[in-house]
Amino acid sequence: MEKLRKFLLDEHQMPSQWYNIMADMPVKPLPPLHPGTRQPLRPQDMAPLFPMGLIEQEASMESFIDIPDEVYDIYRLWRPTPLIRATNFEKFLDTPAKIYFKYEGGSPSGSHKTNTAVAQAYYNAKEGVKKLTTETGAGQWGSALSYACCQFGIDLEVFMVRISYEQKPYRKTMMQTWGANVHASPSNLTEAGRSILSKSPGSPGSLGIAISEAIEMAVRDEKTKYSLGSVLNHVLLHQTVIGQEAIRQMEMANEFPDIVIGCFGGGSNFGGISFPFLRLNFLEGRTVRCIAVEPASCPKLTRGTFSYDFGDTIGMTPLIPMYTLGHQFVPGSIHAGGLRYHGAGAIISQLLKDGHIEARSIGQLETFQAAVDFARTEGFIAAPETAHAIAQVAREALISKEEGRPKTILFNFSGHGMFDLAAYDMFLAGQLEDYNITDKEIARNIEAIRHLQPEEILV
Amino acid sequence: MEKLRKFLLDEHQMPSQWYNIMADMPVKPLPPLHPGTRQPLRPQDMAPLFPMGLIEQEASMESFIDIPDEVYDIYRLWRPTPLIRATNFEKFLDTPAKIYFKYEGGSPSGSHKTNTAVAQAYYNAKEGVKKLTTETGAGQWGSALSYACCQFGIDLEVFMVRISYEQKPYRKTMMQTWGANVHASPSNLTEAGRSILSKSPGSPGSLGIAISEAIEMAVRDEKTKYSLGSVLNHVLLHQTVIGQEAIRQMEMANEFPDIVIGCFGGGSNFGGISFPFLRLNFLEGRTVRCIAVEPASCPKLTRGTFSYDFGDTIGMTPLIPMYTLGHQFVPGSIHAGGLRYHGAGAIISQLLKDGHIEARSIGQLETFQAAVDFARTEGFIAAPETAHAIAQVAREALISKEEGRPKTILFNFSGHGMFDLAAYDMFLAGQLEDYNITDKEIARNIEAIRHLQPEEILV
Repeated sequence: MEKLRKFLLDEHQMPSQWYNIMADMPVKPLPPLHPGTRQPLRPQDMAPLFPMGLIEQEASMESFIDIPDEVYDIYRLWRPTPLIRATNFEKFLDTPAKIYFKYEGGSPSGSHKTNTAVAQAYYNAKEGVKKLTTETGAGQWGSALSYACCQFGIDLEVFMVRISYEQKPYRKTMMQTWGANVHASPSNLTEAGRSILSKSPGSPGSLGIAISEAIEMAVRDEKTKYSLGSVLNHVLLHQTVIGQEAIRQMEMANEFPDIVIGCFGGGSNFGGISFPFLRLNFLEGRTVRCIAVEPASCPKLTRGTFSYDFGDTIGMTPLIPMYTLGHQFVPGSIHAGGLRYHGAGAIISQLLKDGHIEARSIGQLETFQAAVDFARTEGFIAAPETAHAIAQVAREALISKEEGRPKTILFNFSGHGMFDLAAYDMFLAGQLEDYNITDKEIARNIEAIRHLQPEEILV
Repeated sequence: MEKLRKFLLDEHQMPSQWYNIMADMPVKPLPPLHPGTRQPLRPQDMAPLFPMGLIEQEASMESFIDIPDEVYDIYRLWRPTPLIRATNFEKFLDTPAKIYFKYEGGSPSGSHKTNTAVAQAYYNAKEGVKKLTTETGAGQWGSALSYACCQFGIDLEVFMVRISYEQKPYRKTMMQTWGANVHASPSNLTEAGRSILSKSPGSPGSLGIAISEAIEMAVRDEKTKYSLGSVLNHVLLHQTVIGQEAIRQMEMANEFPDIVIGCFGGGSNFGGISFPFLRLNFLEGRTVRCIAVEPASCPKLTRGTFSYDFGDTIGMTPLIPMYTLGHQFVPGSIHAGGLRYHGAGAIISQLLKDGHIEARSIGQLETFQAAVDFARTEGFIAAPETAHAIAQVAREALISKEEGRPKTILFNFSGHGMFDLAAYDMFLAGQLEDYNITDKEIARNIEAIRHLQPEEILV
């Protein structure tokens, strides 16, 4: 019998709980701080933005948290997702490595983002929230939350980074098809937006600005709350269905990965696939290498500083202890919009600081070349974000070949590239470029947040 | 235990053979005729265009034909596809009907077209063909064949209907990402194209013209052959994996459909899902109603004539006995580009003539409304082609409710709408319209092909 290429679980084999890595981390993250008082954030401080169900998850130390039936019921439309062996890509790379990918591109909105979007919409609906606000860059998150809100009858206001709003009108239409209202950010709807526009009328926007706008709109109205697609603990928690499924599917394949790879923006897809494997490292003495891959143009993990910093540009969010390039850092205009974010979140940053995970950065041209190679061998056209993971897989496969050591590599195919073909077009036409940032620019942005540090972590 | 929503088969449960309905049809289709001699087409007449492997399938009377290992090996990247119960859409329609859909949107190119694309590329590669030519309208077929050719190292020249080429640049990029050359049709590369352009320099093109161009380029070079994405017997044959899988999956659900629905352009997705059920009607006395749904603006099945006609606009193809609006009929500019074709193919036409299947036509506005309703309940955003099937499902669900008879309905979700969001945008903005054709226009186009009929079927 020929070897299977694709490993499927049925609905009843879907994990019934999310895995909370906080419970097993040898060193816990430092607490987030209130932006005004600089004191550790209390649950009630977050209540204007999030429902209690999510606030509890944000601070939970339980190892596993039950997935509510209502969420499970929606997950099973597209979950469990397939695990596929990339045999043709292996042949193309001429490597002894075995390459597997978890395919998250099959959800209604085309990425892993639906895993947390559905959960967040559920907890909000349960507590009577009628409207959510959020931001989106490339549009993966905004469309996932639009879909999820539509399932629970919640209205949604999306602040979409203006440059993406203009470059990707179809992401906007996708959100509207699911009933969301979409605004180009900076907008005239918020003080944050108006203040940016008054200084810079042609501002292309940024995730940091859009977050400021979405938060401002949420705090204005008691029945409106805010939703974030990455960075926070509860968001990463919801993504752990990916890694849990992958462990079971790797078992079906009689395999266990030496290396697990995910692209990295705020940590949601990387955390989603890697945390359940890190659990095995922590509890069972496994030694899986987990590698987060960021764009060379936004290298917070590889060239940033570990520091308290804001999650948004204006400075409305709590201060989060994390690897950051400074909240006013403006990343180059690469096409992986979902990775253009200055900070890394508390959990991932602590894991990296303590040596439990690794980080790499890769330039735009290398990532697109890897994505085209993958498309021509395995068929699936990846989002530019996902392309970073594929490029690192190619690097590791080459190392495996050079060392003559057959490694088993697993990566997360976090989303498809159907809305990113303009970027592919530019790449194929030789019109894309890499963006390099100088040490000086990084130092300048980091210096600008030095005053935010509480005394005890100022080193 | 909660009821399953999704019915999955693993790779080894994928059908190992295609089903050839020709073997079981009570009345076989009339033979295709040579366009010059008007005599029944001989296999060698087709040899300049198709490899012998496909020519044999075109005329085969075997019930089942083995799927070659090389094709099976590629199918299993995304096949078997899921069967999903549309419980939320049922609730929305407030119907006692049970609605299931076969989800073909998960293939690399996003539609069912890959099922025949991979098979056709394989048979061509096996016989040493180095290059294929084809046409594409909305782009589903062109992108499917681009992917398939890339898997077998075959060069591909795609003639893309100019209006789609301009409106859907990302479908073009998708084909290029897989290595194909894409030309707007009518082009200057062929006599057919030049002759159209000389008369009508701003021609938006049509599927019929693009077929003429692709055929002309193929016959010029011995190592180049031509590939068609629908209409022909062997194309429909390759799609029967859909219906065969669906039968097994309906069994898993302890169900059997009363009604099977597919949208209709040239017959490939409708034939794919319905033929294996028709087999059960023919051989086991089942009484499944199979309904083909065409656009009201291109109503060959519901308002066309049964007649010999060309498959292309210029008149280069064999004469095919089929329901047709005449090969010079120009359908309204609806967004379901894949359904804008004047003829229906020989098998489907004979089945309709003999009362084994039914046909309905639906206008553009009703189809988009159904697709938006479906997206807001079930999540998946359908191609405008697929939207026709969904609209008919909604109609049948309403009838089921009115009659108080709970029916089980199965439809083919043939492709996703990620490249069709501009059309959704127009629909949501109230800018779409229905296209009505007069009886006079139909009569005029049909009169124009009257001279093509051999005497014996002139009635």
